[in-house]
Amino acid sequence: MKILVLGAGQLARMMALAGTPLNLQINAYDVNTDTIVDAISQQAIGRGLATAIADADIITAEFEHIPLPILEQCQQSGKFLPGAEAIKAGGDRRIEKQLLDNAGVKSAEYAIVNTEAQFKQAITDLGLPLVFKSALAGYDGKGQWRLKTTEQAAVLWQEIADFLAADPKQAIVAEKFVPFQREVSLIGARDANGNISVYPLTENHHVNGVLSTSVIAEATTALQQQAEQVFTKLANSLNYVGVLAIEFFEVNQQLLVNEIAPRVHNSGHWTQQGADVCQFQLHLRAICGLPLGSTDLIRPTLMINILGEDSLPNEILAISGLQLHWYGKSKRPGRKMGHINLSAVNKTELKHKFNQLIDLLPAAAFPQLTTMLEQL
Amino acid sequence: MKILVLGAGQLARMMALAGTPLNLQINAYDVNTDTIVDAISQQAIGRGLATAIADADIITAEFEHIPLPILEQCQQSGKFLPGAEAIKAGGDRRIEKQLLDNAGVKSAEYAIVNTEAQFKQAITDLGLPLVFKSALAGYDGKGQWRLKTTEQAAVLWQEIADFLAADPKQAIVAEKFVPFQREVSLIGARDANGNISVYPLTENHHVNGVLSTSVIAEATTALQQQAEQVFTKLANSLNYVGVLAIEFFEVNQQLLVNEIAPRVHNSGHWTQQGADVCQFQLHLRAICGLPLGSTDLIRPTLMINILGEDSLPNEILAISGLQLHWYGKSKRPGRKMGHINLSAVNKTELKHKFNQLIDLLPAAAFPQLTTMLEQL
Repeated sequence: MKILVLGAGQLARMMALAGTPLNLQINAYDVNTDTIVDAISQQAIGRGLATAIADADIITAEFEHIPLPILEQCQQSGKFLPGAEAIKAGGDRRIEKQLLDNAGVKSAEYAIVNTEAQFKQAITDLGLPLVFKSALAGYDGKGQWRLKTTEQAAVLWQEIADFLAADPKQAIVAEKFVPFQREVSLIGARDANGNISVYPLTENHHVNGVLSTSVIAEATTALQQQAEQVFTKLANSLNYVGVLAIEFFEVNQQLLVNEIAPRVHNSGHWTQQGADVCQFQLHLRAICGLPLGSTDLIRPTLMINILGEDSLPNEILAISGLQLHWYGKSKRPGRKMGHINLSAVNKTELKHKFNQLIDLLPAAAFPQLTTMLEQL
Repeated sequence: MKILVLGAGQLARMMALAGTPLNLQINAYDVNTDTIVDAISQQAIGRGLATAIADADIITAEFEHIPLPILEQCQQSGKFLPGAEAIKAGGDRRIEKQLLDNAGVKSAEYAIVNTEAQFKQAITDLGLPLVFKSALAGYDGKGQWRLKTTEQAAVLWQEIADFLAADPKQAIVAEKFVPFQREVSLIGARDANGNISVYPLTENHHVNGVLSTSVIAEATTALQQQAEQVFTKLANSLNYVGVLAIEFFEVNQQLLVNEIAPRVHNSGHWTQQGADVCQFQLHLRAICGLPLGSTDLIRPTLMINILGEDSLPNEILAISGLQLHWYGKSKRPGRKMGHINLSAVNKTELKHKFNQLIDLLPAAAFPQLTTMLEQL
């Protein structure tokens, strides 16, 4: 079976690595260069979306910020999963908020802001502090502003107004600040028959708005169930097929949806070593109509992102239960270059190994790991 | 780092899948067609051994029956690991027996047979029953004859004489039949510094001379140590770098070497799901000078070969702990097309799942699995 992935980054690559043993042939379509490439080797295979679509049995996506004409062309082929509606909801906070409201799922109170009047109204209606988020292409903390006091409002509005003026398609979603205790995410899949299979909740730590570490969350059964109910509502409301990721704010044992990602997700990379079927193969199984299989935990696993570094001391490979996943990308400051999965038989051993690892990693490139170790 | 694998089959493919996350770029050289291909996609990259060697940082092999001129050209490059001597020992039973004798490692008593006089002498010296094995290219039960009674000797000699006449390079090694209780194998790696890391002993079941299933052996510490001592002697005597597989006959708690394979091995495929670092990555770590890491067992895992079939009921993917590994090859009767790894938390659960699996597999294509289940 031939799969086309929109996007030729690390998620397409890891899908291909997980799908090759199932004899799935996975090509990637680079939307920026209009080229079809081998998802692993990045070797050019051909050009043109029409060719790519014609050659594929199933089309999917590794990211949600896809130009609408491309989405529509894929949708029309009848081969696209999870489909244009889900991708649009993941790529536009306005549509996402509408989806959450319609599904009866809790998230932070919000208002759409396109004008200064709406900006002021949002402050009045929602109160401070407020978080302003760009509606489009706003992942990894880009296009976000915080307003803590009314004195800062005029200066901030000017900044936001400039941002909006630069792109007529953009809009801002103002969200009431949520004083959350932690951020967790739930990753799982729904197949075409409505079967749903999810992983345990994952706890995520960010540094400067970018994911730094993910690890299985200490969570009550009630919290896991709460997350699974939200997952089921959203996945069913979208008639979703594939892996879906939901990021939550946890506030006093209540989960508010922060955002959704209609795809495999960075906070699910630990499943490569920690779960029975990893999220990449889970997604492929779902879109290919194969049994989802088991999302059971094999052993506690911690994921650490590698940002802006293209080499690490080889000694880390001597730590038992450590697997290194490079993405084959050229180095740029802050770029996601790879990740480390660290597994252990239990949490105590995991802490011990994490401590060993921290000693070997360059501290400047891996800030705040010691803090995360203490919280583990 | 760029690795060239001599041989473009499933072992090169699985090496590439295990090495890509380490940013190792793995190409395969098809010795039959003189082409360089992507080890995963099989896409042609170039032609010619000299080009392939020049482009590689390290050269290794996925099989031992490699023409001598190719071996020598690779050896001269100074990039070849485990090196021509080890590959030759794996590809010629005469050299292999000499290696075992020199290292002081026990194997079945033997004699080299090239003439009728030597044939008769071997019967006199070693006694019956005898097993005659071709010196070259004799894997998977091909080129093997058994002699049980002297009455059959004349007919058998004629068959062997015809075989020898057809290829002047061939020879026969006559081995005293070993009344073994079971066949086990030890797979492990040695790095350039002499560090050795091995997996637990694996118990192997063959059908018609071809491996059918492998699973962690119930073995005493003494038996594991005995195997490790043999491994250490052989690996050190070859100054071996990479993964080495040793097949043993177990006779009353004594291990006799059956044969060695200077490469990753079918009986080690279970390590993909059952061990910390799988044999494919272990080999790459060894030849790239990276830490070997841990060969610890994660969970009991059973490997079942898929022979001559290019599809199986999708329902098997619903069994938790089951992973399917297809090799992307075209169907031929008896050909190794893929394998199934089945993992469980313990042996009892493994038996239960194996039973589930047997019910779903086409019985004609998977003979004797019920017998193996009973022995598990």
